[in-house]
Amino acid sequence: MEKKIIKIGLIGLGTVGTGVYKTLKPYENIEITKIAVKNINKPRNIENFDNSILTDDCYAVVNDPEIDIVCELIGGVEPAFDLIKTAIQNGKHIVTANKELLAKHGEELFIFAEKHNKVVLYEAAIAGGIPLIMPIKTILAGNKINKLEAILNGTTNYILTKMDAQGASYADVLKEAQELGYAETDPTGDVEGFDAAYKITTLATIAFRKRIKLENVYREGITKIRAQDMKAANDLGYKIKLVASATIDEQDRADVRVHPMLVSKKSTLAHIDYVTNAVSLSGHPVGDITLSGPGAGEFPTASSVVGDVLSIVSELGTTDYMLPMMRCLHEEDAVNIDINDTMNKYYLSINAKNNKGVIGTIGRICAENEISLASIVQRGVDEDNTANITVITELALEKSLQKAVREFEEDEYINKVNSLIRVQV
Amino acid sequence: MEKKIIKIGLIGLGTVGTGVYKTLKPYENIEITKIAVKNINKPRNIENFDNSILTDDCYAVVNDPEIDIVCELIGGVEPAFDLIKTAIQNGKHIVTANKELLAKHGEELFIFAEKHNKVVLYEAAIAGGIPLIMPIKTILAGNKINKLEAILNGTTNYILTKMDAQGASYADVLKEAQELGYAETDPTGDVEGFDAAYKITTLATIAFRKRIKLENVYREGITKIRAQDMKAANDLGYKIKLVASATIDEQDRADVRVHPMLVSKKSTLAHIDYVTNAVSLSGHPVGDITLSGPGAGEFPTASSVVGDVLSIVSELGTTDYMLPMMRCLHEEDAVNIDINDTMNKYYLSINAKNNKGVIGTIGRICAENEISLASIVQRGVDEDNTANITVITELALEKSLQKAVREFEEDEYINKVNSLIRVQV
Repeated sequence: MEKKIIKIGLIGLGTVGTGVYKTLKPYENIEITKIAVKNINKPRNIENFDNSILTDDCYAVVNDPEIDIVCELIGGVEPAFDLIKTAIQNGKHIVTANKELLAKHGEELFIFAEKHNKVVLYEAAIAGGIPLIMPIKTILAGNKINKLEAILNGTTNYILTKMDAQGASYADVLKEAQELGYAETDPTGDVEGFDAAYKITTLATIAFRKRIKLENVYREGITKIRAQDMKAANDLGYKIKLVASATIDEQDRADVRVHPMLVSKKSTLAHIDYVTNAVSLSGHPVGDITLSGPGAGEFPTASSVVGDVLSIVSELGTTDYMLPMMRCLHEEDAVNIDINDTMNKYYLSINAKNNKGVIGTIGRICAENEISLASIVQRGVDEDNTANITVITELALEKSLQKAVREFEEDEYINKVNSLIRVQV
Repeated sequence: MEKKIIKIGLIGLGTVGTGVYKTLKPYENIEITKIAVKNINKPRNIENFDNSILTDDCYAVVNDPEIDIVCELIGGVEPAFDLIKTAIQNGKHIVTANKELLAKHGEELFIFAEKHNKVVLYEAAIAGGIPLIMPIKTILAGNKINKLEAILNGTTNYILTKMDAQGASYADVLKEAQELGYAETDPTGDVEGFDAAYKITTLATIAFRKRIKLENVYREGITKIRAQDMKAANDLGYKIKLVASATIDEQDRADVRVHPMLVSKKSTLAHIDYVTNAVSLSGHPVGDITLSGPGAGEFPTASSVVGDVLSIVSELGTTDYMLPMMRCLHEEDAVNIDINDTMNKYYLSINAKNNKGVIGTIGRICAENEISLASIVQRGVDEDNTANITVITELALEKSLQKAVREFEEDEYINKVNSLIRVQV
């Protein structure tokens, strides 16, 4: 039997695209026949590279009748979305690393692909090289997963790790990270939690088998985390991490969010440092498992793109009908739980006048709002004769806590609630 | 199109079998039609269980023409091997949790299955519920994996964790573990490293795509680890774990082993406690990833068996030809590197007479054998006027180290080398 050569088209030949090219090159049954790039004359860091397969027209890739699989590696919603739809219409399977597109238009995309009996695989879009989506779809398929807790953004984890190690401020570490290329010039997408929110939206959708809508994902970034909070957390046995989390209950009510969190030093996530990513998931029957590894970078991300390509290649030719497990259809939406209606533990850093009654006031306001305190610590008095009081609460309702914070700030002896960070439960 | 009901036969309805039964029960397109057990009259902890599907004849399962997939959950080489071969001959796919059979007869088994165009899946055989084999075969398929470092035996990890936490002796903790059911009455299979050796043999074979032979796996258990070693390791920044490791070089020379190891407290494995399992793997392009979770137990293991069953079910009916990625054929053997020819770092605990010249003697013997010392610590003198000296070496050749140990013990001032434990590199 003559072995068919599977032809691949790439859209994008940046960091990840180059890694994909180099990794697929040795496969005899796979050929990369066309690559769309912005500048076809730019020198490429690839040995014996044949420039003639480059084009500056992305549609030349998705309209090429010879191509079986298109890898979309440019990111962003448009033109990526239209390119992918055109490729699907033209009978191609898709491999993408586009977390933003999946989070914003995943539902439409997967319905479209299903209609054309094509698959869209996206292992690389979430947590880089960590095997995650394919295991959830295949070997963990017998599970009802009900909880995810993850570090999905390398830039913010790098910044928080450095702040913790050096006792440095957010601003100083961000500047250093930008100089080293770990943070972008405009870091908003990372530091405000957008990137992690895109990823947890798609990850929770596939794990819970219910569609999560991006607009329902509560999101808070790391820009307000202070060196003092890092130190206080450490003293109390915690690290501060930007955690993307998702839970779903028996009534399919989902609580999906991205925000800073105090995680116990005894937990796995506390030891995930710098640009490493990690995902802890809980399900039945499997219990709790944690997968960690490089969340970004040329080669780790390429590993996942190539894994998806090889999965499609292994199916092509054996059947007209794609492996059911590769699909990603979720017709039902999860019911959203508003953050205000959730129960959390909280870390509060309160600045107050140096007055004997302050601790009593904090206790009273908490009690009136049905908030129990796990610990309250005041360490000395600052030069300006104010006191910094650190509070950790037991589980409390978010809207009650927010009401208590407003009442704190209205009190004559309390100056400001400097920080409010949720604590891992 | 009428949906075909896939029929499953179980061999064994112990802890794992019961978990598999309960987990597969809700699937409408899957039916467990026959289960072989030792005692068909034993009460079963399953709601609304239909006893009539039980048989005490294992061959009634593998010879049943209606059954599509046989799950072998009894363990051990025979009769499991003959049952599986008979089932394959009768046209059934196999899911097994039998690590011993895979390690001892994997090659023969996979060639036999391939000849009959059937698959043998075994996610549950290694690291219980942790997704490992399927990810290596699919989403990590583009990688050249060259290193594995893993905790694969829950019993020994439980014992070592307890010894560390309580400062207790091996014998005391083993007794406690046996009372709690974490260790068997005859604990040899676990504490001497046989169980971990079975698992790393198969895991390294699939990860390296070269067959590893069980008889080439170097194996040392944990029975000689002393409370003093635990304490000394802690003082030096390490934990002691039973580590199953495997490396392969560019010439396909493999070094596969199970032995106690001092692992840095900064490493992920140091934080894997009690019955949790973990596997760290390094490959290109993915880099380093770590997967951790429950290594045994009714439900976690059932998760993996069910994942394998669902993977086969999803393929059945879509094609006559099984997903190439599910296969496990490795025609080439790895070249074995003998432990004597490997380079390692070592922890030595040496008991000597209280004599000024001892440190000098240790230094001289090491130098003569081309062993550099990273640290040497003597803390006071014991009641019997002997000194305990702790040595950590730099990388040294195993056979040189063994020669040095013999020379230590021949020296007039050195009483005994109490412990020799390799150190994570």
